[in-house]
Amino acid sequence: MSKVLIISSDCHAGGLPANYEKFLPKKHHEAAGKWWVAYVKEMIARAGTFFDQEAMDDYAEKTGEHGQFQTFMQTSETIADDVLMNLLNDGTSPFSPRQGEWDAKVRLDELEADGVAGEVIFPQMAPFGAGLMQYRYQVDPEQNHAGLRAYNGWLAEFCNQNPGRHAGVALINLDDIEVTCQDIRDAKASGLFGGVLLPTSTGEFPFYHHPRYEPLWELCEELDMPLQTHSGWSPDYGDAPGATAMFISEVDMWAQRSFAALVWSGAFERHPNLKLILTETGTQWIIERLRVLEFKANLPIFNHFKKDLSLTPTEYFQRQCFIGASFLPVHEGQQRHKIGVNKIMWGSDYPHLEGTWPNTADALKTTFLDYPEDEARAMLGTNALDVYGFDQSLMESVAERVGPELSAVTGIAAQNGAA
Amino acid sequence: MSKVLIISSDCHAGGLPANYEKFLPKKHHEAAGKWWVAYVKEMIARAGTFFDQEAMDDYAEKTGEHGQFQTFMQTSETIADDVLMNLLNDGTSPFSPRQGEWDAKVRLDELEADGVAGEVIFPQMAPFGAGLMQYRYQVDPEQNHAGLRAYNGWLAEFCNQNPGRHAGVALINLDDIEVTCQDIRDAKASGLFGGVLLPTSTGEFPFYHHPRYEPLWELCEELDMPLQTHSGWSPDYGDAPGATAMFISEVDMWAQRSFAALVWSGAFERHPNLKLILTETGTQWIIERLRVLEFKANLPIFNHFKKDLSLTPTEYFQRQCFIGASFLPVHEGQQRHKIGVNKIMWGSDYPHLEGTWPNTADALKTTFLDYPEDEARAMLGTNALDVYGFDQSLMESVAERVGPELSAVTGIAAQNGAA
Repeated sequence: MSKVLIISSDCHAGGLPANYEKFLPKKHHEAAGKWWVAYVKEMIARAGTFFDQEAMDDYAEKTGEHGQFQTFMQTSETIADDVLMNLLNDGTSPFSPRQGEWDAKVRLDELEADGVAGEVIFPQMAPFGAGLMQYRYQVDPEQNHAGLRAYNGWLAEFCNQNPGRHAGVALINLDDIEVTCQDIRDAKASGLFGGVLLPTSTGEFPFYHHPRYEPLWELCEELDMPLQTHSGWSPDYGDAPGATAMFISEVDMWAQRSFAALVWSGAFERHPNLKLILTETGTQWIIERLRVLEFKANLPIFNHFKKDLSLTPTEYFQRQCFIGASFLPVHEGQQRHKIGVNKIMWGSDYPHLEGTWPNTADALKTTFLDYPEDEARAMLGTNALDVYGFDQSLMESVAERVGPELSAVTGIAAQNGAA
Repeated sequence: MSKVLIISSDCHAGGLPANYEKFLPKKHHEAAGKWWVAYVKEMIARAGTFFDQEAMDDYAEKTGEHGQFQTFMQTSETIADDVLMNLLNDGTSPFSPRQGEWDAKVRLDELEADGVAGEVIFPQMAPFGAGLMQYRYQVDPEQNHAGLRAYNGWLAEFCNQNPGRHAGVALINLDDIEVTCQDIRDAKASGLFGGVLLPTSTGEFPFYHHPRYEPLWELCEELDMPLQTHSGWSPDYGDAPGATAMFISEVDMWAQRSFAALVWSGAFERHPNLKLILTETGTQWIIERLRVLEFKANLPIFNHFKKDLSLTPTEYFQRQCFIGASFLPVHEGQQRHKIGVNKIMWGSDYPHLEGTWPNTADALKTTFLDYPEDEARAMLGTNALDVYGFDQSLMESVAERVGPELSAVTGIAAQNGAA
């Protein structure tokens, strides 16, 4: 076809606080309300570093949302908790300001207008500290588990509103691996999830080189549920002036760590069909990371650690891993052959403002100009089609309707038939 | 000269437990003895992962020390604490098995036989958890501070035995920055230290982007005391089978983090003569790290964080930082022009067995073959001469006596006069 199938391998969705109540046992409702208020107030208290004025001005220019954000910031410091909660449930919060985050109909329209046929959905903040920041906050473990299950329940229902168009990423925690495995079985059984979010931090538990996670690896292979990492977690840099700059400088690094752990734990060796997808952690970093791991693995001291491994770190990566490259900067795209065109999946990061939405067409032209057709198609859609198990004929029929012309992306008219 | 001046920018020294007593207040002597016994027993308990059999066999083949190590391992699990302490003070421990670590005369002979004229000395484990692993262990803060001062006292006396040949790296902790500054002033006043070891972990304190460290940056600039990082610290990976592989895979990463923090804290901006030297953290990593930092710094959100900075991360690196490359693998040396030949300092890692000693001549030939004379001389000696403030005429006279011929290193006879 002349159109390009675009699957965004990196999008985000989350409900308004009230949306989760249906999926949360009654006994947690009051605590959940308090948790949201405390969380948002903490974010606001840090806004001086986290949402700095100049960045907000840039965003306002792009979106026209400045006034709403300012009002929220100014009033939320002084208003009563219940009024704040009402504002959050109106979608007035600067942390979830776009209706497409919780409204599946608005979302689909916006994705389609942006040229995107299918998407992979990562969380925003979920109740009780679940989601990308799992184990960053001190939370009651029972509440945290209820919170992640509530998110999964909400997300399943959300994905089900546009069947076949959204692959959810299910939340887990690591408190009890038997429970974790049951959560993954539930997610798989729903048919609405494309993967499992592997927490970036393991909190007080050992990191992923430890054998305690073996049942998790085994199950994810058995069910063909890819493991997912996604940047977002970091240690607490506090409120020093340089804190946000440090956060942004290091945030990818924390989410990249699981790769080495799965190599040295033998998880990739014992489970050759286990997949690990590293999303919004950058792209080019894997070249340097593999260089370091190969170098270290060739030190004499590694003979012992390698003795049960039949492949090298690079070979495990090529066999079992993928990079969710998000909005792939030009210079990272130029390194694609060093990584493997079949390893890279583009993503718009919808609805985040640092992503390409609603200007994806322009962004694609910038990065993919002069790419050979098969490379552009692989990175923009067909890699994700396979990895996340989207329905090919559904995706292609949607792409015929909403996708960009290949020539508008690469500057070159389509040569092939169907991708 | 036809000879090459070799200064090893990465060596290690540490006393036997008894050697520190003279520098440790009496009230800490008993606790120090208990601390050493507990520390060594913990290392031995982990020996199954940390000192694995095959690696030990490799080492034994290289050194002939196998028997001694085995005996120590087998007996130290069952023997009484006082007998263990006697063994440690005989230098029988596998963790400090070479006399040159605590005997300055033996050391100088071994360095000279290896072609090395001068050296920079990093710690082994110092009393009460001071040294490379600062803040890894739960230690009484008063004891920890006494321990690092004891190490500094011991090292100063040690360096003073061969004047001008050793540049010590002084230990500090970060419990009280006023006290830290006094320790740095004391080190500078002795004239025996070439730098200050910046702990890789800041423990319970904020990381180095925080303004609490400003007096430290100011003082180190004022006194021309370079800040040093050195790999070694890591979080505790526990005793899982993959733990040591993870440690080795990630150990460089932890010690690389301070660079970004000093950029974003504005420390390099406010203190243009402050130096940061990153040692045994690899070499090539800085290329990728600078790419990431430059990319992030060009995101709109960084406008605010950059507003007081007149340079880019790469420019701060070029102005104020150096890489202690240790035994520079061939492929890393090939990237030297991307980093800057004037930024890289070779080191033997004496007396560690993973280093080039006692086979430095062979190692140099492998890495520096066909290097232009000025590049080889810079990386092997003259960069370190300037950065650590060695006496040039002393170093050159020693090099004339003990240094290798340039042609033996690069394969090309000297063209220049004195370096």
